[in-house]
Amino acid sequence: MALYALSRRLSAGSNSTSTTLLALRFTSASRSYSSSFREERDTFGPIQVPSDKLWGAQTQRSLQNFDIGGPRERMPEPIIRAFGILKKCAAKVNMEYGLDPNVGKAIMQAAEEVAEGKLNEHFPLVVWQTGSGTQSNMNANEVIANRAAEILGHKRGEKFVHPNDHVNRSQSSNDTFPTVMHIAAAMEINSRLIPSLKTLHGTLNSKSIEFKDIVKIGRTHTQDATPLTLGQEFSGYTTQVKYGIDRVIGTLPRMYQLAQGGTAVGTGLNTKRGFDAKIAAAVADETNLPFVTAENKFEALAAHDASVETSGALNTIAVSLMKIANDIRLLGSGPRCGLGELILPENEPGSSIMPGKVNPTQCEALTMVCAQVMGNHVAVTVGGSNGHFELNVFKPMIASSLLHSLRLLGDSSASFEKNCVRGIQANRERISKLLHESLMLVTSLNPKIGYDKAAAVAKTAHKEGTTLKEAALKLGVLSSEEFDKLVVPEKMLGPSD
Amino acid sequence: MALYALSRRLSAGSNSTSTTLLALRFTSASRSYSSSFREERDTFGPIQVPSDKLWGAQTQRSLQNFDIGGPRERMPEPIIRAFGILKKCAAKVNMEYGLDPNVGKAIMQAAEEVAEGKLNEHFPLVVWQTGSGTQSNMNANEVIANRAAEILGHKRGEKFVHPNDHVNRSQSSNDTFPTVMHIAAAMEINSRLIPSLKTLHGTLNSKSIEFKDIVKIGRTHTQDATPLTLGQEFSGYTTQVKYGIDRVIGTLPRMYQLAQGGTAVGTGLNTKRGFDAKIAAAVADETNLPFVTAENKFEALAAHDASVETSGALNTIAVSLMKIANDIRLLGSGPRCGLGELILPENEPGSSIMPGKVNPTQCEALTMVCAQVMGNHVAVTVGGSNGHFELNVFKPMIASSLLHSLRLLGDSSASFEKNCVRGIQANRERISKLLHESLMLVTSLNPKIGYDKAAAVAKTAHKEGTTLKEAALKLGVLSSEEFDKLVVPEKMLGPSD
Amino acid sequence: MALYALSRRLSAGSNSTSTTLLALRFTSASRSYSSSFREERDTFGPIQVPSDKLWGAQTQRSLQNFDIGGPRERMPEPIIRAFGILKKCAAKVNMEYGLDPNVGKAIMQAAEEVAEGKLNEHFPLVVWQTGSGTQSNMNANEVIANRAAEILGHKRGEKFVHPNDHVNRSQSSNDTFPTVMHIAAAMEINSRLIPSLKTLHGTLNSKSIEFKDIVKIGRTHTQDATPLTLGQEFSGYTTQVKYGIDRVIGTLPRMYQLAQGGTAVGTGLNTKRGFDAKIAAAVADETNLPFVTAENKFEALAAHDASVETSGALNTIAVSLMKIANDIRLLGSGPRCGLGELILPENEPGSSIMPGKVNPTQCEALTMVCAQVMGNHVAVTVGGSNGHFELNVFKPMIASSLLHSLRLLGDSSASFEKNCVRGIQANRERISKLLHESLMLVTSLNPKIGYDKAAAVAKTAHKEGTTLKEAALKLGVLSSEEFDKLVVPEKMLGPSD
Amino acid sequence: MALYALSRRLSAGSNSTSTTLLALRFTSASRSYSSSFREERDTFGPIQVPSDKLWGAQTQRSLQNFDIGGPRERMPEPIIRAFGILKKCAAKVNMEYGLDPNVGKAIMQAAEEVAEGKLNEHFPLVVWQTGSGTQSNMNANEVIANRAAEILGHKRGEKFVHPNDHVNRSQSSNDTFPTVMHIAAAMEINSRLIPSLKTLHGTLNSKSIEFKDIVKIGRTHTQDATPLTLGQEFSGYTTQVKYGIDRVIGTLPRMYQLAQGGTAVGTGLNTKRGFDAKIAAAVADETNLPFVTAENKFEALAAHDASVETSGALNTIAVSLMKIANDIRLLGSGPRCGLGELILPENEPGSSIMPGKVNPTQCEALTMVCAQVMGNHVAVTVGGSNGHFELNVFKPMIASSLLHSLRLLGDSSASFEKNCVRGIQANRERISKLLHESLMLVTSLNPKIGYDKAAAVAKTAHKEGTTLKEAALKLGVLSSEEFDKLVVPEKMLGPSD
Repeated sequence: MALYALSRRLSAGSNSTSTTLLALRFTSASRSYSSSFREERDTFGPIQVPSDKLWGAQTQRSLQNFDIGGPRERMPEPIIRAFGILKKCAAKVNMEYGLDPNVGKAIMQAAEEVAEGKLNEHFPLVVWQTGSGTQSNMNANEVIANRAAEILGHKRGEKFVHPNDHVNRSQSSNDTFPTVMHIAAAMEINSRLIPSLKTLHGTLNSKSIEFKDIVKIGRTHTQDATPLTLGQEFSGYTTQVKYGIDRVIGTLPRMYQLAQGGTAVGTGLNTKRGFDAKIAAAVADETNLPFVTAENKFEALAAHDASVETSGALNTIAVSLMKIANDIRLLGSGPRCGLGELILPENEPGSSIMPGKVNPTQCEALTMVCAQVMGNHVAVTVGGSNGHFELNVFKPMIASSLLHSLRLLGDSSASFEKNCVRGIQANRERISKLLHESLMLVTSLNPKIGYDKAAAVAKTAHKEGTTLKEAALKLGVLSSEEFDKLVVPEKMLGPSD
Repeated sequence: MALYALSRRLSAGSNSTSTTLLALRFTSASRSYSSSFREERDTFGPIQVPSDKLWGAQTQRSLQNFDIGGPRERMPEPIIRAFGILKKCAAKVNMEYGLDPNVGKAIMQAAEEVAEGKLNEHFPLVVWQTGSGTQSNMNANEVIANRAAEILGHKRGEKFVHPNDHVNRSQSSNDTFPTVMHIAAAMEINSRLIPSLKTLHGTLNSKSIEFKDIVKIGRTHTQDATPLTLGQEFSGYTTQVKYGIDRVIGTLPRMYQLAQGGTAVGTGLNTKRGFDAKIAAAVADETNLPFVTAENKFEALAAHDASVETSGALNTIAVSLMKIANDIRLLGSGPRCGLGELILPENEPGSSIMPGKVNPTQCEALTMVCAQVMGNHVAVTVGGSNGHFELNVFKPMIASSLLHSLRLLGDSSASFEKNCVRGIQANRERISKLLHESLMLVTSLNPKIGYDKAAAVAKTAHKEGTTLKEAALKLGVLSSEEFDKLVVPEKMLGPSD
Repeated sequence: MALYALSRRLSAGSNSTSTTLLALRFTSASRSYSSSFREERDTFGPIQVPSDKLWGAQTQRSLQNFDIGGPRERMPEPIIRAFGILKKCAAKVNMEYGLDPNVGKAIMQAAEEVAEGKLNEHFPLVVWQTGSGTQSNMNANEVIANRAAEILGHKRGEKFVHPNDHVNRSQSSNDTFPTVMHIAAAMEINSRLIPSLKTLHGTLNSKSIEFKDIVKIGRTHTQDATPLTLGQEFSGYTTQVKYGIDRVIGTLPRMYQLAQGGTAVGTGLNTKRGFDAKIAAAVADETNLPFVTAENKFEALAAHDASVETSGALNTIAVSLMKIANDIRLLGSGPRCGLGELILPENEPGSSIMPGKVNPTQCEALTMVCAQVMGNHVAVTVGGSNGHFELNVFKPMIASSLLHSLRLLGDSSASFEKNCVRGIQANRERISKLLHESLMLVTSLNPKIGYDKAAAVAKTAHKEGTTLKEAALKLGVLSSEEFDKLVVPEKMLGPSD
Repeated sequence: MALYALSRRLSAGSNSTSTTLLALRFTSASRSYSSSFREERDTFGPIQVPSDKLWGAQTQRSLQNFDIGGPRERMPEPIIRAFGILKKCAAKVNMEYGLDPNVGKAIMQAAEEVAEGKLNEHFPLVVWQTGSGTQSNMNANEVIANRAAEILGHKRGEKFVHPNDHVNRSQSSNDTFPTVMHIAAAMEINSRLIPSLKTLHGTLNSKSIEFKDIVKIGRTHTQDATPLTLGQEFSGYTTQVKYGIDRVIGTLPRMYQLAQGGTAVGTGLNTKRGFDAKIAAAVADETNLPFVTAENKFEALAAHDASVETSGALNTIAVSLMKIANDIRLLGSGPRCGLGELILPENEPGSSIMPGKVNPTQCEALTMVCAQVMGNHVAVTVGGSNGHFELNVFKPMIASSLLHSLRLLGDSSASFEKNCVRGIQANRERISKLLHESLMLVTSLNPKIGYDKAAAVAKTAHKEGTTLKEAALKLGVLSSEEFDKLVVPEKMLGPSD
């Protein structure tokens, strides 16, 4: 990080003091500033690069030309790792097509280190760069080339292993970047989001079973309604999460399609026949996910409909989780002046001024995430709709927003399950009290005395502050025995036989 | 409408039976189908137009080429009326620049009829047409030309008054349409939205005063918190609406700028010097609103940032109203199992199955409107961002979405005020009961016994189900007299001296 | 419509002159104003209803209480028709459970008239009403009850057939409205959207084949790139539409689940066991679509994730169509100062001031629709996320926005196909000229002379304004023969063997 | 950072290896892992905290309970700095109201260090925490208390300076967090966004002047239109940016209102009269910005309409910049097969496979930012609309999204100005060639020969591939001399006299 700041300052001649300071702040724990540089070179000419960094000329130029957002805007790690996977697979397939095995194996080893996250510090570029992700592709090519050269006993910057001719062989940024977008998203979905949602689903389902005999008042329009069990209420949440999992899985067939092999515009120029299918197979093998080559490479480069679609599934999941978390915090409201039907786990002191207050903080973190996911979905939508001709150039933003949503939804679902849902208890006493005070049990009188009379009973009780039974007797529509036989909450929980 | 359906069917040769049927449905009250047609002509050649309609060839072509959405998608009426205003003013100014006064006066008279809504049936085109609104501009030109010709004793279709050379003189669709967008929006803001919001503001303010002595429990994180008055709570809503009015007014300076005079690309080609300022003055005179000519016509044609900005103000107002309506329905939840602090007016039976149930339906209508306004704002944003070169061609959609939001916000604010807020009553008994059960009054002990001990008192009362006072005495942190002196909700409503 | 306006004015005592005028405008073709009223009655008491309308008390109250947006905001017709289907099926199933067959058959007949759109004028309510759609459900109940009574020889308003006890038997608004939402959306998807998209897909595919031999310059980053065929370019669009169809079909399994049978809160209280499955089967039979009863009724009432999901699919389709239409208008830009590769059909004069100009108006209508669909998606998302407890009360808005998007996408896709895509011609001369001027053919030199030298050739030609060949010879990197052999656009259209 | 990772792992028992690894990456330069812990304590009891960190028990609990998103999701730095400013001011004002000056001064000194960013490593909490931001407020209180205690010669954790009783004196999270939201946003607007936009405005304006004599073809509907100067075209962009500055400035009056003094629910309980105004004055003094105390504290806690409003202004700016950047990349498209009117600066090699290709990468970074800002605006809107009762609990998300948009817009505007706009050159030769090939100069014939004949001339030239003049002569509508006199692009740039 120190080098990041320093090299930016030195070579870019940036007068953006605040940015430099910001970068320096992130480095305060470090004591070793880079004091030496080497020359790297691209078609634009030579440029100074910090000696202890593996990146090359094009990465260095991007650092200087895109001083946007600071370190927290760096390309998301799943993209970096996916580049490692892809470049490893590319080298493997390229050897089949004639790449020097010596060079190929070194590339594979270097790429594996990228895939494992060991070289993350050599990927300093931010999301807000060229819209094809070319600079991050070149960052990967340069780092892997220099690292592979070192493995083979050569020096950085000498291009013994060439970033373009060797590492990027048979590839273009235009097909590699959409490929890593799909690899990264599919991996995050499978390794982070779905497991978290499944755990949440399981716990909600357990709660649904645990609460299956607790009869409570229903609420529609936020108003008292006919009863249901707390278990039934939770079964709705359980079903929402179950369908959410189905929804995101339903988008995977298109996410598993890889653009690789399309090269610059989708034609596959400069690849050999069969390269596209082989590399998809290699990625599938490496990740244990069923990647295939995209059936139409023109679509795969020029549009990111698959990302928009997956983002749409996340948006629906966010809608579901917003509903669930809102219900839980309202049902847990109180302790004395709210609904008070649920007792939520106390994880921390809730207020810096109101002692004894415990807040539904996990619901809050989760609903904030949901709002952000809805927003990111619009960003992805806008980006996805703005492609031109053979290339959509909102790739890094689309990738970043989608991965952001995936990460946040996965992590917050896990946190919500662990720190909230798992520990929810029913406040049986409160639930029972509310149920029996309710006027809505009157609905069970409908089939017997008709809608209009039942309404009169409820209205009388409401106005006079009495029970339904008292009102029914007063109006003479039912005997006491009839009332007791008809109004039994436990019999109001399903269809009759 | 009958003619609309029939002429579409006859002349377009549409095989879209369902659309035709839909159109016919709207005409069921009418008994006079058009049975005769006249020929109109434009640069594309002749075309049959229903004899009893004033529109001409270009309108007829659009009808046939844009069979999208049916009659409910027709250009919003405020746009049609604004065209009437604009064309009247244009004729007036054109007479100063040499337009035959005979023709000019007839145009003014015909345009006045359009402005008054008398010729609405002659404006059949939908929003989803050419993105410059050219076809609606031509619809206005054609209707006004034919009507003016009739006024002068000539026949429809003869072009005695020419739609382009006379009615559209010194104008282009590219400057007229953005001009009517601004006229329509500014008029709706001033005549519909702001009056509704002001009335709502006034009523909320009255409620704030009416409720100023009702002390109630506060709620933060949906949890019980320190007390405030119901009047204070309503003062927050009042302030939100007040600022909302400020916000939308704050956007008007740019909405009052008119594109007219820019003609095709913003240069003002084919107008005379001063035409732009004169026409803005004429519109200002006609509408009693302070319209001026846009300082930069290139911006005024190529971008609709002013509409995006105003839509942003509406979005903020929607956010405010969503909060207010949500609070009111939750505070009015019950009647027995909710918070029950507010009693909302009963306007209708709430449920078809649950007698006696009364729902916060005005809150529901309003919050649905708010959601739609937020959505329309995204539509306007996307449309606004997609202009190319000298012209943004999302004009009709931007106009339609913005006017939709204005109409819905204005009407629903009025309905909410009239049918809900005005009749809200405080349930004083319930409010008092909740307040005195609360544990949060403990906060007033902080300055005396410190945060940690106050927390202990609250926690003890919570766990043991006792009052705060009992807990305080049990823990020995205060005497009974001290407690009574310190814990007085009425003293917790503001800073101390 | 006349009655709508008049009855609103008379019975609501509305002082909203403009609304009344607006309503009156829609009635100008009608000559028969309602002059008589009958009394209808609900649990709130008696109310005057226009004699010639079939609706009853609750509809009338809603008309008066929700004066929002005017006639164009009426509940979408597909919802009205779906109510006809549902009520017909409900009567049929209720007869199995004991409903008087005489009454049941009359209800079925009346409901069939609603399903066919014959009674549309009796459905005056707007979207912006109670959030459960209760008032539209009661509108359906009242109209069908009165019409069924007439069929049986009884008078309107006498409740010989009771809207609640007979027509709404075993139902609640809370399950009927989500049911009609699903019926309406599924029908629109199957009968309007998918057919239009399939036709569009077919035509794009035909164009892709028609253009398969036309080699053209590719463009990435809006910059010249390696060549492809125009057919390949169109194959990308074709694939986007194909996947769009897959995407919306992928959401149907959840849309085919019907809430009916859940009644008020999802428990199915006041229905008989099996009612839910029977009614889903009846609807499936009536519509020829594979509807089933929802596996969890609590989810089906409290959330509308299925609508959010489908809206997400439409959002993705909008993104695809925006890309396609943008490309087509840019490729068709000109006639002399644009890219000019495509010749779009001329459907109308393009400008009121610039003669001879023909604009890509179908692209404009379509892209405006796409922007609106993206906006509606946000509205649906916000509405979907705001459910409380056992009921989401944004139902009419969600239904309306989703159906709006479905209608617009279906119609505009059809219009785009018919009036634009079908008639697109390639400007072969222009395409060829651009291709051969391009510098990007240089890419085919990469495998032979390496990246760095190839770059030098391109840069030289660019700076000196020469051809690539001249530059290559000047730099001495290739012989003339080698160049001609390597640089063959027709060989750059795919991988090599 | 090392401690962050380690402590999270040790005390939370997290099995989230990937998160830990991610955190460790950020620490790779550091060599000192924490090996010792001290006990901190809050109302929940004791907890282990890394010895070398200044935070206390509540921060530590949050770290463990909200394992969401990893280090890049930490609370934005402007919020941390604003906490430093606020706590410094609070101590200053509290001394006026009786806080021990010894303690007060130490707090001021410690808070100043926070304001300067010196203690950033002690603020490890992520955005996705409690929705009131309580945990970040406590993080600030704990760090400042411990640091102030050290300044006074006491040990960390001993609470010689108490986080609640001293540092948070007269405050609640519920008023401090909205206060720092406003301070941070207002500072970013004034120090980052507006300066960048002003620079961009200045440069666009310079270009507008530089290009004022270059006559070029106009384009509407992406089709050739009447001419304008390149300077006029740039004047439109200039105006958009100018209004953008006005728009964001127009939101500041509400952003300058500070919630401080409202404490828990807006009443100001536990503050002294005048505290609110004094602290606003102190913040104004410290920041040189005109902060005032909010006129209604209930609104200021329960809603974040001011943030939604400002986000709306940013959304409008994003719309403007999207338009500008899109135009620039399309006008710069080529080099040989695009419009080619602008020559954009070459900052880096554009493609990894296509040598010689230079891409409009600054436009791409900027438009990606614009899409993200539009998305963030929806996130802020959703969060803003979801407040309940006395508190909106989407505060950290709203703050984070708004600050994200501010940072990105500011930085990318600066980068766009520096690396793109400043270096734009007009391709005069190409512009002139296109202009004179155009058919649209025909418009200047309208006043002379009428619309219909002018259209015929243009159509003839178009069909026959000739010049306008040739067509005009052939049709015999004008003499050669007349044509030359009428068709002078330089005379088509404005109204006539």
